Amino acid sequence: MNFALKISYSGINYCGWQIQNNVPTIQNEIQKAVSKIFNGEYSVCGCSRTDAGVHALEYVCMVKDAPEFDYKKLPLAMNTYLPNDIAVIDSSMVEDWFHPRFSAIKKEYIYKIYSSRIRNPFLNDRAYMYKRPFDVIKCNEIANQFVGEYDFSSFMASGSVITDTVRKIFSFDVYREGDLFIFKVCGNGFLYNMVRIMVGTVLNSYEGKIPLSISEIIQAKDRTKAGQTMPPYGLYLNKVFYEKDVFQHF
Amino acid sequence: MNFALKISYSGINYCGWQIQNNVPTIQNEIQKAVSKIFNGEYSVCGCSRTDAGVHALEYVCMVKDAPEFDYKKLPLAMNTYLPNDIAVIDSSMVEDWFHPRFSAIKKEYIYKIYSSRIRNPFLNDRAYMYKRPFDVIKCNEIANQFVGEYDFSSFMASGSVITDTVRKIFSFDVYREGDLFIFKVCGNGFLYNMVRIMVGTVLNSYEGKIPLSISEIIQAKDRTKAGQTMPPYGLYLNKVFYEKDVFQHF
Repeated sequence: MNFALKISYSGINYCGWQIQNNVPTIQNEIQKAVSKIFNGEYSVCGCSRTDAGVHALEYVCMVKDAPEFDYKKLPLAMNTYLPNDIAVIDSSMVEDWFHPRFSAIKKEYIYKIYSSRIRNPFLNDRAYMYKRPFDVIKCNEIANQFVGEYDFSSFMASGSVITDTVRKIFSFDVYREGDLFIFKVCGNGFLYNMVRIMVGTVLNSYEGKIPLSISEIIQAKDRTKAGQTMPPYGLYLNKVFYEKDVFQHF
Repeated sequence: MNFALKISYSGINYCGWQIQNNVPTIQNEIQKAVSKIFNGEYSVCGCSRTDAGVHALEYVCMVKDAPEFDYKKLPLAMNTYLPNDIAVIDSSMVEDWFHPRFSAIKKEYIYKIYSSRIRNPFLNDRAYMYKRPFDVIKCNEIANQFVGEYDFSSFMASGSVITDTVRKIFSFDVYREGDLFIFKVCGNGFLYNMVRIMVGTVLNSYEGKIPLSISEIIQAKDRTKAGQTMPPYGLYLNKVFYEKDVFQHF
């Protein structure tokens, strides 16, 4: 049987999703828990490689060819084996067509900004503290200019080896939510560090530090024309969309 | 000069406010920062002893007889010397009549409950996870019964040596706020562990585990008649009230 798991985690204590030697990763913790439940070695594939320090509200991963198990019992069973900063929050059985990464049609990230000169001890490692005045309307206008299908190589970390750098951004909005400003972006996929560079470019552009418009930066296909890479701890994978909601239970 | 400081902290990494040997405490961190700023040893007195693991949104403390300093610059100056889970969020100059503890006329605490069978990795150490269904109206009705001036010795941790156990509760309400249920209690003072026992008693009473009414438990003056002591990490000192708002800046 193939099981899809929806998980949520605070990424601050992990070196990202992907298993690596001798460092804590989310995939490693999930695989350890899965292997205990199914009594054997099972690998788990994920919907994306999140970076060290990046959080997830709804990350999707899958265990393939596992023994029979009541999928409804997986969240509680898994959570007894997982550390407190990772939780399985939903589960389902999936057919062979489903792959957490290749079946995804849209991914949505949010980036949280706390605009204040005085830090908030409860937002450490959960939001980026922005010490200057923040204009949500102006930032939203700049963010909106990313919408469309473009070669986003200006917004890819230098050193990446990916050759197909065309991505489609469906929406990129900035809005207020309580004490926080939220950058929310939805696209068919993202290049390495792309969301963090997009948010940094909106901020630097709003601050008047970048002479080019967003469309000129895109056209330049030159990483040096875009803004700073924001730190990972403000970033959250918010949701992954598939043709069919695999977690819809009837 | 006497300076009042309003501070906010996540208490999870500290053994409470009060300085003790060889353990991390909030008072110790504040005194270290104060001593660096004023170039000498200064003791700081606080508005209450919070327990290990308890948080504060607006705790008030004071430095007495310190050298001249622009009080408006204290928050940023202090925060450069404080760990990330403690922040000075406001400051003022206070006259000799003021004492953070003895001048307080009301204190307000909140206790956060997360009602879910599935844990939330972002609420670890910040809210108590309640796995059963939660009825906010019923819990609010029970909580309201605490309002009044009574001998609250049934709600004091056993072993306390305090003899005056009469306290006045101005309000005790339960309400929903987003994903959380909030217990908010305001009183002229609280006995040792009193808020945590009050919240535990509301919950146990709602669950049908306590045969007596709240007023009968109060009358019994017997700790064993009340409910459980809730864990510290759901508790926040929310606000301390004085005759005059010492942080009101003109």
